[in-house]
Amino acid sequence: MKTYGVILAGGGGTRFWPLSRKELPKQLLNLTGKDLMVNETIDRLEGNVEKENILVVTNSTQAELMLTATAGRVRPDHVLAEPAARNTAACIGYAAMEILCKYGDGVMCVLPSDHYIKNVDVYKRVIASAIDVAGKTDALVTIGIQPAFPSTGYGYICHEEKRNDDGSYAVRHFVEKPNLQKAKEYLLSGEYLWNSGMFIWKASVIMKYFEELLPEIYDCLKKIGDAMNTDREQEVIQEIYPQIPKISIDYGIMERAGKVLVLEGDFGWSDVGSWDALEALYEKDEYGNITYGEQVHIDTRDCIIYAKNKLVTTIGLNSVIVVETEDAVLVCDKNRAQEVKKIVEALQDSNKPQYL
Amino acid sequence: MKTYGVILAGGGGTRFWPLSRKELPKQLLNLTGKDLMVNETIDRLEGNVEKENILVVTNSTQAELMLTATAGRVRPDHVLAEPAARNTAACIGYAAMEILCKYGDGVMCVLPSDHYIKNVDVYKRVIASAIDVAGKTDALVTIGIQPAFPSTGYGYICHEEKRNDDGSYAVRHFVEKPNLQKAKEYLLSGEYLWNSGMFIWKASVIMKYFEELLPEIYDCLKKIGDAMNTDREQEVIQEIYPQIPKISIDYGIMERAGKVLVLEGDFGWSDVGSWDALEALYEKDEYGNITYGEQVHIDTRDCIIYAKNKLVTTIGLNSVIVVETEDAVLVCDKNRAQEVKKIVEALQDSNKPQYL
Repeated sequence: MKTYGVILAGGGGTRFWPLSRKELPKQLLNLTGKDLMVNETIDRLEGNVEKENILVVTNSTQAELMLTATAGRVRPDHVLAEPAARNTAACIGYAAMEILCKYGDGVMCVLPSDHYIKNVDVYKRVIASAIDVAGKTDALVTIGIQPAFPSTGYGYICHEEKRNDDGSYAVRHFVEKPNLQKAKEYLLSGEYLWNSGMFIWKASVIMKYFEELLPEIYDCLKKIGDAMNTDREQEVIQEIYPQIPKISIDYGIMERAGKVLVLEGDFGWSDVGSWDALEALYEKDEYGNITYGEQVHIDTRDCIIYAKNKLVTTIGLNSVIVVETEDAVLVCDKNRAQEVKKIVEALQDSNKPQYL
Repeated sequence: MKTYGVILAGGGGTRFWPLSRKELPKQLLNLTGKDLMVNETIDRLEGNVEKENILVVTNSTQAELMLTATAGRVRPDHVLAEPAARNTAACIGYAAMEILCKYGDGVMCVLPSDHYIKNVDVYKRVIASAIDVAGKTDALVTIGIQPAFPSTGYGYICHEEKRNDDGSYAVRHFVEKPNLQKAKEYLLSGEYLWNSGMFIWKASVIMKYFEELLPEIYDCLKKIGDAMNTDREQEVIQEIYPQIPKISIDYGIMERAGKVLVLEGDFGWSDVGSWDALEALYEKDEYGNITYGEQVHIDTRDCIIYAKNKLVTTIGLNSVIVVETEDAVLVCDKNRAQEVKKIVEALQDSNKPQYL
């Protein structure tokens, strides 16, 4: 059975403002200093998925930049552009229909395009197992991350105590981001994993779940599928896609499906959700700082300093994030990196689209 | 008797880096939002000194910029360019000799070019009194600032308890920057004033003191004076000036002269010695911030934020200075604004002249 990669790359990414912008979201940034996040995601599929079988789902505003960024890695006709943002169920359904109609059934690896993975070899082995399990069992398989700390920023997956022979666990239920008390309990129990947003299943299997659990979306996907390989394909997508109900794959299918399995992943994962997450990606200097670009520091500790164009200098700073780009500077208490999106909101409210 | 303005404008000004640079020192910055500091100094002489009689002493690297900046205010031949920096005694002696040889004796008001004065009317009245006293008494007159707090950053002038009929006090002695304990004692005693660096005296009187107290400098000045109004003037200045011993007017003459008087000044004065001094110049907003340029803040208090070109945004900052210019950014704990010059030193040491 064939395997496919479906990379979800339509996100906005306001949390890395001012580096990330509406038309330059996180997945198109080089945050690791190695390559764009989306290209790192593509390259990590090597060994499990043929280049030829990798699809990227993005939105129409980012499509051109995505085509350029992934040129040589992804076939141009495999960069799918959503005409409108309709949440993850819609774009996963679209990709599944594309695969079924154009290439035939196979195991799809649905992967976020903007996550960091430290240990790529371990990651590849886990994905290989997941492809194996999904191919043999007709289950919806997901990867759960071994929690490193009681995170209140991630969703959790609660699984059965007993491991199956193939290494997977049956999923009991999915859990929203918990408070700290709950997060600590989850960590101690040993039955909770972080929800990584990585899903592995047969295209035909997820399509059956759409039909069963999200019939309204399925009807839309069916119309799109019927137009595929005809002259009307783009026209129908432009017309129908924006009508698809907005729901996440987690709410719409994962939490309600019959057979959901989880494989444990312990490969140094981060969703790189805000500037402070860079601490997981970089070695700190002797003062606990993470730095990029030209800088001079005096008595500066535990800071994250990103200088894109200018010289950035600091005196007496502690736990501060400084980001400098062509047209904007951010200076932020490191413990409040989550609030960067509030700056973006304020810029929207004050009608300064040039900074968005 | 004529009155002259002699504005000392040759300083380097590393303390306002990255806004101030080697060729753009503090006196050529518009820190008040009204005009360049040197031009504000010139304009404050209105009513006491004719425009025609104002001289600016600067150094050769800044001379051209100074000519442009003061055009229309100061006669081009009244912008004197020191061939080398030889401290304040040298440049005051040079200006005094220029006045004596070219225009005849008169009262010189020697003024720093980079200080802030809030209440200009009161300032003008004090300068008028000082001119009057200096003209009548042949004394060296200085302005002492009524201390507003026990500053450890300023020098002090200790004066006799009893005020003279002309409003002046006899000076007992000059005091170096004190520690906090001493500064508090000075404040309580009522006999100490801040040394403002403003001096008012007859050109002939200060020249006599050069002859008496600084004979080596006097010899140099004499040679320069002998060449004045001849074809050899510039040649001799270029040759002799760099040989003048380096000493401040305070050490060289003020602390050793026979008759020194001080007039009290209480007109909202600051030497604007570092970024945090801007707090004396601007109204704070409701959160205690002083801001210039385009910015967005979230929970930011008691900060000084200067955005020259870019949008500057802050989250959760307290008592931080942020300065953004064309090629550099400074982020500095407000209590450590004095250390900005260390950044300049570090840039010198690391051979980055483009930022100096």
